[in-house]
Formats: sequence, C-alpha cells, structure tokens
Amino acid sequence: MLPLKRDGNCIELIDQRGLPERVQWNRISEYRRMVAAIAELEVRGAPAIGCAGAYGVCLAVKDALILPPEQQQDFLETALAELRTVRPTAVNLTVMVDRMAATIDNRLDPALLDRLWLLADELMREDQEHCRRIGHLGAGLISNGGNYLTHCNAGGLATSGFGSALALFFQARQDGKQFQVWVDETRPLLQGARITTFELLEAGIPATLVTDSMAAHLMQQKRVDGVVVGADRIAANGDTANKIGTLGLAVLAQHFGVPFHVVATQVTIDRKIATGEEITIEERDGDEIRRMGDCWIAPRTVATYNPAFDITPAGLITGIITEQGIHNYPFAF
Amino acid sequence: MLPLKRDGNCIELIDQRGLPERVQWNRISEYRRMVAAIAELEVRGAPAIGCAGAYGVCLAVKDALILPPEQQQDFLETALAELRTVRPTAVNLTVMVDRMAATIDNRLDPALLDRLWLLADELMREDQEHCRRIGHLGAGLISNGGNYLTHCNAGGLATSGFGSALALFFQARQDGKQFQVWVDETRPLLQGARITTFELLEAGIPATLVTDSMAAHLMQQKRVDGVVVGADRIAANGDTANKIGTLGLAVLAQHFGVPFHVVATQVTIDRKIATGEEITIEERDGDEIRRMGDCWIAPRTVATYNPAFDITPAGLITGIITEQGIHNYPFAF
Repeated sequence: MLPLKRDGNCIELIDQRGLPERVQWNRISEYRRMVAAIAELEVRGAPAIGCAGAYGVCLAVKDALILPPEQQQDFLETALAELRTVRPTAVNLTVMVDRMAATIDNRLDPALLDRLWLLADELMREDQEHCRRIGHLGAGLISNGGNYLTHCNAGGLATSGFGSALALFFQARQDGKQFQVWVDETRPLLQGARITTFELLEAGIPATLVTDSMAAHLMQQKRVDGVVVGADRIAANGDTANKIGTLGLAVLAQHFGVPFHVVATQVTIDRKIATGEEITIEERDGDEIRRMGDCWIAPRTVATYNPAFDITPAGLITGIITEQGIHNYPFAF
Repeated sequence: MLPLKRDGNCIELIDQRGLPERVQWNRISEYRRMVAAIAELEVRGAPAIGCAGAYGVCLAVKDALILPPEQQQDFLETALAELRTVRPTAVNLTVMVDRMAATIDNRLDPALLDRLWLLADELMREDQEHCRRIGHLGAGLISNGGNYLTHCNAGGLATSGFGSALALFFQARQDGKQFQVWVDETRPLLQGARITTFELLEAGIPATLVTDSMAAHLMQQKRVDGVVVGADRIAANGDTANKIGTLGLAVLAQHFGVPFHVVATQVTIDRKIATGEEITIEERDGDEIRRMGDCWIAPRTVATYNPAFDITPAGLITGIITEQGIHNYPFAF
C-alpha cells in the first residue's frame, strides 16, 4: 500500500492519522505543507518520510522558482534545513534530503526541477526494490503454522509500498505460507492497531490485535515464534532506534528465547555513529498520551513523558535483515 | 479514596469507568445490580471487589427476604454462586463471599441481615487496617528522591480506601518523603492513566504518566528505582496474577536490576493452589481493545486477544509485602 504518489508537480498522500476509519488522500503542493505533514504524522515511517523528504525538496525548488532570483538561494537553504530536521530520529529523512540536495547546483531553473522530480521518483523506486529484496531474503524466517509478533507499522505505508518488517509477511503469504501475526497496538499513536492490522488484513494475513502489555504473556505461553520489527536508525554496531516499546520486546524475547529480528534498508544504517547512545530520541507532546481523539483519558494536567523511540542494544538483536542479506550479531555491515 | 460505602440497606459506589472526567456515585440496592457493577468494572481491584462481594451477599439476603419462604434458599444459592464467580481471577471475591456465607444459617430473617451488614462493614474495616499496616511496613522501600513505577491501580479505589501498592506511596508521602511515580497507563482500560494518576495527584505525589511500552526505556536510562504493583491472586509459591503487563515489567526489572515488589493483603494469597499455573485468567471482550469510548481505533472486525491478567513467576519477584511483613523470595507465607 503506497503512502504517497506523485501527480505531476504535486504529491498526494494518505493521511495516516485517520486510518483505518477514514482513508483520505491529501494533495501537497508546497514544501511547507510537506514539512507539516511529516511533523504531524500524516506520513510516518522512516523510509516513507525519506521519500516524502525527497519530494519535499522538489516542492521547495518549485516554491523557490516563483521568487525573485536573489531570494531563491536563502529560501532553499531554509527549506532544506527544515526538511532535514522536522523529525530527528529516523536517519532516512536526512539521507534522502542530502541525496537530492547534492544534485542542486547554483542555478535553479525548471530543467533542474524536472531532474529533481525524476530523482525523487528514482529514490522511491529504489526503496521499493530494496523492500522487495528484503521480502525475498527474509521470508524464509516465516514458517508455516508460525506465530509472529510485530510492533508499530513497518509496512507498505511506512515505506514506499511493500514494507520492511511486514515485507517478510507479505512475501511469505505470496509464497503460500499460512501463519498468524500478533499486532501490538503501539501506544500512544496506535500505528499497530490502526495501520498494521489494516495492511495485514488487506493482504489476507490473519492478524490478532493485542495491547503492548500482552507480549510477555504470549511469549510465556510459547505463542510467539519470532519478533519482527522495523527501524528508524541503526548505529554502526547494530544498536537500533525504533518505535518506543521495541526495547522491551527485545528484552522479553531474550528472556523467553524468542528470535528477535530488525528489518530495514541499508539507508537506515547510520555508519557515522558508533553506537545507539548518539541517536537523538524525539519527544512528542503529552496530549498524545492524555487524549484519544476528543476524549481525555487522564487528568488534563498530569505530567507525561512521551519519547517516540527507544534504543535496542545490538546484543539483544538476533539478526538485522537488509536488502544485502541477513546480518547476524555481532554486526558488521 | 473509598470505592464504595454503605448507606443503610444500600451501597453507594463510584463508577470507576468514568474517572477522572466524571465522578459519579451509583446507588446499588439489589444483588443483581452489584453483580453487574463487578462484571462491568464500575468497581474493580481485587480487595474492592471483595468488599463489593461481601455487601452483595447482604443485598442477596435482603432480596431473598421479600420472596415466599420456600423460594428463599434457592434464590440465595444462585445469588452466592453468581457473586463468587462474576470475575474469576481475583481470589478476594470468593474468599469474602465465603466468609459471609459461613455465617448464614438455614433461617433467613431480618436479624441475620443486620448481622451480615455488620460483618461486611467489619471485613471492609479489616482491609483498611491491613492496607494501613502495609503502608507502614512498606514505606521504608520508598526513598527520598526516588523514582518508582507502578502499573494499573492498586490504590484506595482498588481496595477499601488506602490501597495496597499505592499505600507505600501514600504512607511515604505522609512521612514527608519526596519522590516521583511513573504511572503506566495500563491498556486497555487505562486504570493507571485514569485512576492511579488521579489518586496520586489528590495525595500531592508527583506522578508522570507513560504508556506501558515506555518502562524498558525508563529502566535502561536508570530512571526507575523500584517497581511496585498489586495482585489479584498469589499462589502458595508466590506466583502472582496481576493486571496484564505485570509479567513484562517483572522481566524488565530483572534484566535491568530493578527491585520488583508485589503488595497485597494476606487474603489475596491462595494457599489452596501450589503455583500460578492453576490460576484462571479472565479473557474480556475484544472491543475493549478495538474501541476507545465511541471511537474505533482499529479495523472493526480485526481479531483480538484480551487476557485481563498475567502470571508473574515467583522467581522474578524481589519481595511480597503483606500486612504480616515483607516476604522475600523464596516465599513461604
């Protein structure tokens, strides 16, 4: 399932905040609107926001071209800086914006913009190919009759359409395997409950929704044959930033002897940092926890702490699957 | 904070489902209504439903007394069976109903009903004393400047007014200690977000609300000095049934070297069962996970699994605090 698609000089993206009840496509025609879409999680998932960032660069150049020439460079620099940093944890955003920026020479003109649109398309196609390859490489980990647990959404909507962690399930299903997936609801924003279940059911894969607090009980009952999650940034040693709750699952998996796999494209590996300690963890607004839609589910003034990600040490990870293969601990990419 | 109080021949109870936004007292004047209040979690928490069950026996006798004498015994037997079993995991309900039933002789009359009301009052007072004693015994585990994590609600509203796990915090606060409590929101029914934060803030104790998936991250950052939870049933060997998610916290606490304490009155220890394997875990309706109030937060037809409790093996528990003292592993009560 595609999170976004290009329509000429604009981007159409599914507003993922309304899923599964409301499937609404929003049309994005300027870069500031794309920054807002990334900030507010209309589009989310490390590879998907990488693609959104790449197209955001196109929109920024398009926006610049209608300004007087002497203002264009400053405008563009500001725009690129905003796009790079709107969300800090996933490395894909920076990498993709940088790849796009590297092809921008001093003169902005319509021909450059055309090249940028094609490059962004190409980066998105590249992610699609890598996800497909990951699916083929990793599907062998999914067994007939098995039960697997996933957290958050590392599916088509988090990537360029085919998913990272979920690519294993999609491919295994296409290969004719029968298995079941436990889906952590993934508080506070419920990407598992809202998006992963939606994608798995669309693909004909039996999915059972559980709260994040049930994984230990399932593993204790030997009802989990493997945990498969995505990643937002992987350090050179394999330490992995992913959705808050991933670390807890990795500790539980080790305790109960369940294999724990991280699935991501090579873009997500940040070789510039040695360990997870160097990864910035985004903190989000407390109302994400205090409210559910219009409904207050806690005292309105209670203090909250809302880190969006956590860091799983490499030693707790059985394997990391990228388009280049299945890497086992200790990791050397 | 009292979950219920007697008013003559009726019981007034706070409808805990509406907290903290709506504080509504419901008047319960017949046993069937009390069964429904327990089933639907208007009143919840092992010791509190024990008290509710005891008063439910009074209501059942009151209801029986207006029937023709030849129907009274059958009616009462049915009522007692319903009260005992309306929720299966917490042992307190059965114990309290049995204690009340033991004083019922063959002849039902108003004098017996008067004795039963006084006995139920006495059982509730006994729980209050035990919780106070637990507070005094356990408050030593709470240090100035410490940060503690609790799950679900083992506070006044889960007991007879002073709490089990939260009694440690209430007493430590009364002793003048300064500390902070991380409150797991406790999906799906959010007893932590809705009730524990409410009680802690009322008591002037700094509370910070987090999702259940954040505990591992907090422990990894060394921001948790101890985990303190209640219990619904404790086997003779110390295996403990408590709110779903407790087992996961215990595994994390062991992994990160954080003390993990269970707090409960002796009533909650079920010496008739050797280990936790014999404890029945209640499964509840999947809509508790799929919906939040009127809002669907998942595909409406997705499968769910909704166990309300899990079993923490004794070996993961640092200590169990009852009114008789702090018991350390291995447990012999």
